[in-house]
Amino acid sequence: MKFTKMHGAGNDYVYVNGFEETIDNPEELAVRVSDRHFGIGSDGLILILPSDRADVRMRIFNADGSEAEMCGNGVRCVAKFVYERGLVRKERLIIETGAGLLPVELFPDAGGRVDRVRVGMGEPRLTRGEIPMAGPADERAVDIPFEVAGRTLRATCVSMGNPHCVIYVDDVDAFPVAELGPQIERHPLFPQRTNVEFVQVLSQGEVRQRTWERGAGETLACGTGAAAVTVAGVLTGRSGRRIVNHLAGGDLVLEWLEAGPVLMTGPATEVFSGEFPL
Amino acid sequence: MKFTKMHGAGNDYVYVNGFEETIDNPEELAVRVSDRHFGIGSDGLILILPSDRADVRMRIFNADGSEAEMCGNGVRCVAKFVYERGLVRKERLIIETGAGLLPVELFPDAGGRVDRVRVGMGEPRLTRGEIPMAGPADERAVDIPFEVAGRTLRATCVSMGNPHCVIYVDDVDAFPVAELGPQIERHPLFPQRTNVEFVQVLSQGEVRQRTWERGAGETLACGTGAAAVTVAGVLTGRSGRRIVNHLAGGDLVLEWLEAGPVLMTGPATEVFSGEFPL
Repeated sequence: MKFTKMHGAGNDYVYVNGFEETIDNPEELAVRVSDRHFGIGSDGLILILPSDRADVRMRIFNADGSEAEMCGNGVRCVAKFVYERGLVRKERLIIETGAGLLPVELFPDAGGRVDRVRVGMGEPRLTRGEIPMAGPADERAVDIPFEVAGRTLRATCVSMGNPHCVIYVDDVDAFPVAELGPQIERHPLFPQRTNVEFVQVLSQGEVRQRTWERGAGETLACGTGAAAVTVAGVLTGRSGRRIVNHLAGGDLVLEWLEAGPVLMTGPATEVFSGEFPL
Repeated sequence: MKFTKMHGAGNDYVYVNGFEETIDNPEELAVRVSDRHFGIGSDGLILILPSDRADVRMRIFNADGSEAEMCGNGVRCVAKFVYERGLVRKERLIIETGAGLLPVELFPDAGGRVDRVRVGMGEPRLTRGEIPMAGPADERAVDIPFEVAGRTLRATCVSMGNPHCVIYVDDVDAFPVAELGPQIERHPLFPQRTNVEFVQVLSQGEVRQRTWERGAGETLACGTGAAAVTVAGVLTGRSGRRIVNHLAGGDLVLEWLEAGPVLMTGPATEVFSGEFPL
């Protein structure tokens, strides 16, 4: 099986061209290829497939074999792949995901190489019922105090199709993410658990984010998390509608237009191609 | 640059055929390729090179760019590579390493595929001066008590070209390796620090090992450590001269002939081949 390893801000997947390769059991294959010592090594497997509703379809399988709806960092790499290899040679295209159809804009250089891609991440959902989160279903959770491990923190919660809890801190490097991340993830406020973003505001247009991903622990980058942080910054007045978000694995630029979708622009990087025996 | 990813009991390297590829700066390349999110992902880089003293020469670069003398798991994969690709089509060959010339025996199947390799790991050195270890330079350290983190443990120490401290425990799964490993590694007994093997004896011919590698933390497999455990088992009477050692990443078979070298037999596995842009 031919494959290409790509990453978006450090969020790395094994990509397989499903226009040419047939994968019978992607759940099992995802587990095999993702292993970082015995396999290719990745956060998961992404299949690039024909679509009858969009220009191209992607399916994402986590390293544990479960299928995910969406991955903002993966969408950018799929766009790069289909453009550079001529599968879909359009600078604006629609990608079918498990979370719906996402509009994507590519910025190729003169040689046809794509290193930056913008993705429409959809509109945030803001009520506790939508997130989901305990408490009055039609109220928002903006800077609400809550207790964890004997400390009082303040949470601003946003759904980008998956739940996010944004916590502002003074020094994100020094913050005990590994200690508090899992306790917030499983806090009784969040019936389906939650992703957690710890954010240090550098200016109205610039933040630094560390990410605790539900079920995965601290990760290098999380596209939906970066989108949620953009929304939380506007809701709390801490940052503007356009920010540069410095994540552990790279920078993303985010824009949240008035009552519209969150747009995320970031890198898509090919690392190597190879042949994996099935 | 063409490369092949192989592992021996989970100890994985990026292998480059230096008969065909020219690598100008292997230290820097090792850092790039080893990164598990932004590179190929490995424990390091191994160059397979012509030798004027042996059948083939290998150079090993750790993930941090430093050059290592030897790696028993890597030697097996080099042997597999040169045999299967016809660079050296011999079932007994000599591999030049930074720790000297090592004799290797291959066990190809009828199709010429090599999945198991035996390596002569050299003779153990047993005095404190050779290991090195504090105390009388010409004495051995066999089951000596020492204090760490308020507990008394017993150590049997062996050099296989690098220092090893073997600790026998009742239940290796439950043992707090991550807590005590780093404290033993840096214990004042060991002026150049030490690798640490935690070993549960199952029978005279079978042990289970968890490895704390100097500078690397807990790893899936350590060939010199498995050899040291074989010697320690004989010195303490806990196990015999031929053992199966179950490591986290796979099984190794070890033999220590009377006053001779330690022979290690184990798997060599090719995972995939690829092309990495330099």
